[in-house]
Amino acid sequence: MTDQLDQKCIDTLRFLAVDMVQEADSGHPGLPLGAAPMAYVLWQRFLKFNPANPGWSDRDRFVLSAGHGSALLYALLHMTGYELSIDDIRRFRQWGSRTPGHPERGHTPGVEVTTGPLGQGFANAVGLAIAEAQLAARYNRPDHTIVDHRTWVLASDGDLMEGVCAEAVSLAGHLRLGKLNCLYDDNSVTLAAGTDITFTEDRGARFAACGWHVQHVDDGNDVAAIDAALKAARDETARPSLVVVRTHIGYGSPEQDSYKAHGSPLGEEDVRKTKQKLGWPIEPAFLVPGDARDHMRGPGKRGAAAEQEWEQRFKAYADAEPALAAEFERSQHGGLPDGWDADIPVFPADAKGMATRAASGKVLNAIAPKLPQLTGGSADLDPSTKTAMKGLGDFNPAPDGGPDSDDRQGSDGGGWSRAGRNLHFGVREHAMGAIANGLAAHGGCMPFTATFLVFADYMRPPMRLAALSKLHVIHVFTHDSIAVGEDGPTHEPVEQVASLRAIPGLTVIRPCDANEAAVAWRVAIETREAPVTLVFSRQDVPTLDRGRLAAADGLRKGAYVLCDEFADENDPALVLIATGSEVHLIVEAAQRLREEGISVRCVSMPSWELFEAQSKEYRDSVLPPGITARLAVEAGVPQGWSRCVGDAGDMLGVDRYGASAPGNTVMEKYGFTVDNVCTRARALLADR
Amino acid sequence: MTDQLDQKCIDTLRFLAVDMVQEADSGHPGLPLGAAPMAYVLWQRFLKFNPANPGWSDRDRFVLSAGHGSALLYALLHMTGYELSIDDIRRFRQWGSRTPGHPERGHTPGVEVTTGPLGQGFANAVGLAIAEAQLAARYNRPDHTIVDHRTWVLASDGDLMEGVCAEAVSLAGHLRLGKLNCLYDDNSVTLAAGTDITFTEDRGARFAACGWHVQHVDDGNDVAAIDAALKAARDETARPSLVVVRTHIGYGSPEQDSYKAHGSPLGEEDVRKTKQKLGWPIEPAFLVPGDARDHMRGPGKRGAAAEQEWEQRFKAYADAEPALAAEFERSQHGGLPDGWDADIPVFPADAKGMATRAASGKVLNAIAPKLPQLTGGSADLDPSTKTAMKGLGDFNPAPDGGPDSDDRQGSDGGGWSRAGRNLHFGVREHAMGAIANGLAAHGGCMPFTATFLVFADYMRPPMRLAALSKLHVIHVFTHDSIAVGEDGPTHEPVEQVASLRAIPGLTVIRPCDANEAAVAWRVAIETREAPVTLVFSRQDVPTLDRGRLAAADGLRKGAYVLCDEFADENDPALVLIATGSEVHLIVEAAQRLREEGISVRCVSMPSWELFEAQSKEYRDSVLPPGITARLAVEAGVPQGWSRCVGDAGDMLGVDRYGASAPGNTVMEKYGFTVDNVCTRARALLADR
Repeated sequence: MTDQLDQKCIDTLRFLAVDMVQEADSGHPGLPLGAAPMAYVLWQRFLKFNPANPGWSDRDRFVLSAGHGSALLYALLHMTGYELSIDDIRRFRQWGSRTPGHPERGHTPGVEVTTGPLGQGFANAVGLAIAEAQLAARYNRPDHTIVDHRTWVLASDGDLMEGVCAEAVSLAGHLRLGKLNCLYDDNSVTLAAGTDITFTEDRGARFAACGWHVQHVDDGNDVAAIDAALKAARDETARPSLVVVRTHIGYGSPEQDSYKAHGSPLGEEDVRKTKQKLGWPIEPAFLVPGDARDHMRGPGKRGAAAEQEWEQRFKAYADAEPALAAEFERSQHGGLPDGWDADIPVFPADAKGMATRAASGKVLNAIAPKLPQLTGGSADLDPSTKTAMKGLGDFNPAPDGGPDSDDRQGSDGGGWSRAGRNLHFGVREHAMGAIANGLAAHGGCMPFTATFLVFADYMRPPMRLAALSKLHVIHVFTHDSIAVGEDGPTHEPVEQVASLRAIPGLTVIRPCDANEAAVAWRVAIETREAPVTLVFSRQDVPTLDRGRLAAADGLRKGAYVLCDEFADENDPALVLIATGSEVHLIVEAAQRLREEGISVRCVSMPSWELFEAQSKEYRDSVLPPGITARLAVEAGVPQGWSRCVGDAGDMLGVDRYGASAPGNTVMEKYGFTVDNVCTRARALLADR
Repeated sequence: MTDQLDQKCIDTLRFLAVDMVQEADSGHPGLPLGAAPMAYVLWQRFLKFNPANPGWSDRDRFVLSAGHGSALLYALLHMTGYELSIDDIRRFRQWGSRTPGHPERGHTPGVEVTTGPLGQGFANAVGLAIAEAQLAARYNRPDHTIVDHRTWVLASDGDLMEGVCAEAVSLAGHLRLGKLNCLYDDNSVTLAAGTDITFTEDRGARFAACGWHVQHVDDGNDVAAIDAALKAARDETARPSLVVVRTHIGYGSPEQDSYKAHGSPLGEEDVRKTKQKLGWPIEPAFLVPGDARDHMRGPGKRGAAAEQEWEQRFKAYADAEPALAAEFERSQHGGLPDGWDADIPVFPADAKGMATRAASGKVLNAIAPKLPQLTGGSADLDPSTKTAMKGLGDFNPAPDGGPDSDDRQGSDGGGWSRAGRNLHFGVREHAMGAIANGLAAHGGCMPFTATFLVFADYMRPPMRLAALSKLHVIHVFTHDSIAVGEDGPTHEPVEQVASLRAIPGLTVIRPCDANEAAVAWRVAIETREAPVTLVFSRQDVPTLDRGRLAAADGLRKGAYVLCDEFADENDPALVLIATGSEVHLIVEAAQRLREEGISVRCVSMPSWELFEAQSKEYRDSVLPPGITARLAVEAGVPQGWSRCVGDAGDMLGVDRYGASAPGNTVMEKYGFTVDNVCTRARALLADR
């Protein structure tokens, strides 16, 4: 049962999308035709938003996980009054337009997260819902509710087939994220075929097994049924909700129910036939009936009023809880409280030293109590990644019927609650990355993730999306080289640092000792609107003597002169460059070479990206162009180092997989010794 | 109910593992202590194997997906008579030993696949089971069964949390792989904590929702119950089977049921306490009672007899079906039939040309009918990746009750059967990669995968494992640059080629036109024991005139001189180097520059790895060291190109994300035009 005006609005959305795709001669008409009714009901009757202020913190979040349906989202944004004109709509998928092929956060007002790579949006939504739950628990007070919104996802068959989505489903169910609701556009068709050839599982039953509330709507055009299901989903507060809505891809078009309707323009003739079939005027294209527009401006007006009420509530809250309110506002905008870094330790010189992961853990624990927005955890590796934040609680639903807090094993003694800031992702690296993106996109949270560096491979897709959409996520990776040792090549990263450096917009930092680890965390925290990846050692490394060597603060510039070991007053004959756990090797080698009469400069280069951002003058001052004998040392693939060492330089790296043996044995066998650094350095000088 | 000898065998396995970890002072005692009974029952009573011939094609496959339990696997291999001595056992995790930290294929006899990164082994097992089903359908004849074995997996909580596993579960259920059985070591504990903090879904119900047969064994020490469940699993032929076995991590040790028992040696005192508790002699370590050893040699003897019977059967088969038998044997060893490449087309010069993905599709379809072991498909992208093999059938269970073949949408008209060689992975890139590894590890199959290049990020973990374990898998990636166009930056690879080149042991080839695409496929097919990645364009590129330019066969050497456009008789002033869809730009630019009086050499460099493998003489002949003005052109990040162009060279690449607009517009805006190549080339010469 759908009334006439509702139908007109739905068809307006449908044909705006169809016309966009046709005009661009590119795009995906299938999803908008099938899913327009559910999207309409959600936006018209449930979604809380104010188009005049897309950044209102207490808005509902909508995620189009099936990002290929972007035309539908743009039609919704246009119709509901966001700053997206009909000209923007007409310039779908064109150079410089605000309506790119897939939704891009920061590019189009009202787009919450960048989607398209399937499964990511769904997992982002879990992050958005975690953020809401955590902030609500932290900031709401009995008489003051300032965080209270929902997260809605529209997902496709393709989303549900992706592993990252399955991970997120499992975790969301476990966490009982009652304010997370997913509309599943169950159209039985994917890009290449019907789902009968690959995807015949009982999706509803799978979600139910994962603790979700599951409903079915048999007819995706039945507005009343969709409405009832969304009401029930909203009223179910103990579990996340899935509404399986049976739709028809390319509804009304000659290719309805065929994969051919998925990702190609219908073509002019089929556009005409589809409009005829659904009783829509063939001309003009991009038709927006006035009553449809007026009607769809309604929810935005309600939202504006809701925001005004919220402003009043927030004012009362700020009166009652000024400190909390100030903290809330500051963290919403990513601001740092004064003195957030006051407790970061300075590590004394120590030849035995400590693993940079251990230093990282100490620094994190010095920062976390003072930085309320910092939240995160590992993919089941806290004891190894040293990323547990002591005393700050574990984000988990309050036990009900299960064992109570004290009996539960965890990383932390702060108790279990929605306000807990330690997140436990389980062995789900991919979802961890995507959930962190959702947390960052939400506002009010500064998320970090943690796992072994070799498993960065499991989470590259969300790392790329964080960089593309300028999300401030901190990735901690430990166990960063073949020095991992006994666990062997499956657990020893070799190519990972290089492959992360390849990601545009991602800053990768591999600190050499405890004090560089501390500065690396400072940089990571201070960065705005970009992800930062921190890479730490499993094994102990000496804490360098900063009395003798340059201060670790040089890390901020990406590379800096650690020391000049000059045999006489001359310029150095040789520059030794290293990162991370190999830096102490070049420091020792330089001393030895100086004793042999060779003048050596030692450069610590923890971050290529930070160094690249410096002036040419600075870069040349660290690596004087006239000194071409340069040896770089890093326990990873040599890829990319030629740029730094130049034609006359050399690189001591790892060009094969690691091996299983005690870590120091592996390092020695692979040539990471002071002796070998000296030998390679001498050979470099002998060659000229 | 467990009889005494069974118990003694189980405890022998347990304490071999415990002693290995203790001796190495590194490793994972928790899983072996808990899972030894189920592993024992499986190997002793069900698994078909001949330790004297680990390569027997009709053996059952056993996959320890929870690879951190390697000590248990090594104990099983030793006890059942594989070539793994007690000295090997004692040298667990030591340099050069045959017992590395995690099981490595090709390193230890009896290890089928390399495991450790969680979830991979489970998905490999799905590939092993697909291979068995496909080969059985192709080669068995009514009176001759030469392929008939099972695939058994032992998986942990961590495996089941991973998305790659969830994808594989869904596909295996869909495919009704009745000979796939999984023992799930349900111990409720992971590395960092109890599963109650992250993993409370109903796993059995999830598998059931995915079409699996599910059983529960409540006591993981109950040999009779395990035996009964494995019998039932074996007898269930219509669905894959999961047996959820409730166990206790670190069984018998003081840390039983705690995450502390997962991944650290027990320590001498706890080793003693555990032995006491389970009634095992404290001394000597590595105790192997004679009757236990004798008993556990039983299954291997049965297996040897079974192999003898199989040899008889195969002889009869070879008499009755000599051609099939010869084909079977050849493909088991990766051999290629004569004339496999006879139909590979030669593409005539054509200025409009065709997309290299389209050429790839034609070449694949010319090869596939003659190469029976070639099997593969895409992650729901056949129409785009052009990887459907026409007329060769689709691997899928015969429809039962569902729509029959002709009504089903698919990529191919060859019908649905177990013998179908087109695989449909669904939108499951990660599992696709891992399943392909299983297919390659099985023997008799040469698998390929296909998706968009940007989604290579979803499948890096199995690509790395393919390279590490020397598996011949062919990865096809299309839509290989910002020229993808309208779909925008989420679908435009920028850093992917560089990041794949970083993986040791992986050969990456990016052909420049249809004829290079053909040679690339030849190289991919002819490669033994290593993965090859083929990267193809979405957009048309000119088919180069090989009458005027060098033959495409030069691709075999990774880089070759395409042409010397000399303005006079002198050596070139400049070398232009490009890969893939940018090669035609340098060819045109060279002509233009020659007209301006600049002598230019054009080098096509489709594969760094192949070029690197050539002699220095050859490499210097292509890129003469004396010519330092070198410009490389590739629509990807510059990382790594300095090595090739040198200090005096330049690189025209992409150092940011792409954009949504028609592909040629994006390429133009990013500087990929003949004009800009000429401008950059002139600037390079002007600088000197």
